[in-house]
Amino acid sequence: MLDFTKLNGLVPAIVTDAATGRVLMLGFMNEEAWAKSLSTGDVTFWSRSRNKLWTKGETSGNKLRIREIRTDCDQDTLEIRVDAIGPGVCHEGYQSCFSWKLDQGQWQRADERVYDPAEVYSK
Amino acid sequence: MLDFTKLNGLVPAIVTDAATGRVLMLGFMNEEAWAKSLSTGDVTFWSRSRNKLWTKGETSGNKLRIREIRTDCDQDTLEIRVDAIGPGVCHEGYQSCFSWKLDQGQWQRADERVYDPAEVYSK
Repeated sequence: MLDFTKLNGLVPAIVTDAATGRVLMLGFMNEEAWAKSLSTGDVTFWSRSRNKLWTKGETSGNKLRIREIRTDCDQDTLEIRVDAIGPGVCHEGYQSCFSWKLDQGQWQRADERVYDPAEVYSK
Repeated sequence: MLDFTKLNGLVPAIVTDAATGRVLMLGFMNEEAWAKSLSTGDVTFWSRSRNKLWTKGETSGNKLRIREIRTDCDQDTLEIRVDAIGPGVCHEGYQSCFSWKLDQGQWQRADERVYDPAEVYSK
């Protein structure tokens, strides 16, 4: 059983690319988001800012299809291996949300944009 | 600047293998742990259970040498790419803490042990 007690009902869910292993994003799930992810096969998070369920891709269409689910030794964190629909997971146009790299004490963009978010999110 | 406000002073830090990209573990850093990680080049977390700084490998010797540091678009999560000293990061003897896989609704060990934790942690 997953341990939802350590972060007030949430577990961190690391989303990785099933093909390459690359970390794409991190979200949080409560028990309801976890149940919905399992029943639909698409990643659903709990949005801490909007206080509601948030199925990744519900606006852009770029859903995260679940291929494999892992948990760690404490069963308080998830790794969800996915096929990411569309060119990129990050709403700013990048394949991964982790596009910022620390370089000599400064955060620098280290990846190239793979799509134009204005085209996806204005639909 | 990293955003430490969303989880009461903590940011999740995903540790990945710099060579393969595999997710090895997830810990949390407060500002002090973050500063110590930067100054030493070894990953230091804030232990939520022990309420103190926790340098991974301080007991086992299996430190996590930092090779690259990434953050995401919200700057509230870290990905730390490391060279992991020793055979495995997980204190239960596995390369990655994410050794449990969901299989037909049951958590099953999906990886092989790479070392005997009794030998490492009894020193």
